[in-house]
Amino acid sequence: VVRWAPDARGRLQQAAFELYGERGYENTTVAEIAEHAGLTKRTFFRYFADKREVLFSGAQALQKTFVAAVVEAPESATALEAMAAALDAAAVGFEERREFAAQRQRIVNANPELQERERSKLASLAAAVAEAMRARGVAEPAATLVADAGITVFRAAFEAWVQAGNERRLQQIVHVLLDELVAVMAG
Amino acid sequence: VVRWAPDARGRLQQAAFELYGERGYENTTVAEIAEHAGLTKRTFFRYFADKREVLFSGAQALQKTFVAAVVEAPESATALEAMAAALDAAAVGFEERREFAAQRQRIVNANPELQERERSKLASLAAAVAEAMRARGVAEPAATLVADAGITVFRAAFEAWVQAGNERRLQQIVHVLLDELVAVMAG
Repeated sequence: VVRWAPDARGRLQQAAFELYGERGYENTTVAEIAEHAGLTKRTFFRYFADKREVLFSGAQALQKTFVAAVVEAPESATALEAMAAALDAAAVGFEERREFAAQRQRIVNANPELQERERSKLASLAAAVAEAMRARGVAEPAATLVADAGITVFRAAFEAWVQAGNERRLQQIVHVLLDELVAVMAG
Repeated sequence: VVRWAPDARGRLQQAAFELYGERGYENTTVAEIAEHAGLTKRTFFRYFADKREVLFSGAQALQKTFVAAVVEAPESATALEAMAAALDAAAVGFEERREFAAQRQRIVNANPELQERERSKLASLAAAVAEAMRARGVAEPAATLVADAGITVFRAAFEAWVQAGNERRLQQIVHVLLDELVAVMAG
């Protein structure tokens, strides 16, 4: 019986990622994840609603980071500048977890149900960013368009960042892609 | 026994839309759609794989329209100009079907499974447009970024177009939103 489980959450997450990677997400049960982490199913459910949530538990924190950065950007900042600040803040939070992020991305990309969940989370994130833009006075449709464009940049940057062999920081890739989008939209 | 069914496809689609709108997508069966259209289930399955496909059968044609317009844009056109041409071509194909499109959008928006399917179709569409961009020499990441931005504009324009009370043409809304995105990305 495990009486004391330091970082049970992290251990469960790592156990889940290992099993999803080895035998596939669809072939892994919560009982197996708990056992692999040396913990009980009950402990698992104290941290995660189900095995899918292990992969998406970071979404809420990410959304908070984006929204806070948009809201807190200087009053004088344009919508694009507020978006750039939010991308920056979000990128910084990932830098130390690249291997973890890469592992997660491989799992999500291997399963259509998880890809759908990912798209759904990104759509929610874009909607929250658009709302934050409106809160700082950006009118529609600009608020929605800049939020969607920003999330597009973030997703593309994230994918490039987790690629094998990449040595650039996420923050740097985000800047490059945002500049690229600005350039392409300038014709 | 129906011996002759002029426009069976259109009748099935209209019957499906009526039932989805009245009693909800999830509470409607293929048998009911066929009966409502005065046709058989066998006839239904000659045109559609399942009841969901009635709502997404236009996706392939839309993708062809987008891709063809990108590929056929003048060699001198920038990525943005090729994207604008594709948005234009896609918009024109919808103008005469606004009531139909509005009805479809209400059904999709009322059901999370259908919204996920819609996002998945739009992601495929963006990937196809990005490929067409690369085929005309646009490098990555510009190809993916301009394609995603274009599909964002299309989706937002479509939503505004089907709103009750809107009297503008889809093509006009697409132009306005594309200009707006260009302006917001210019800072």
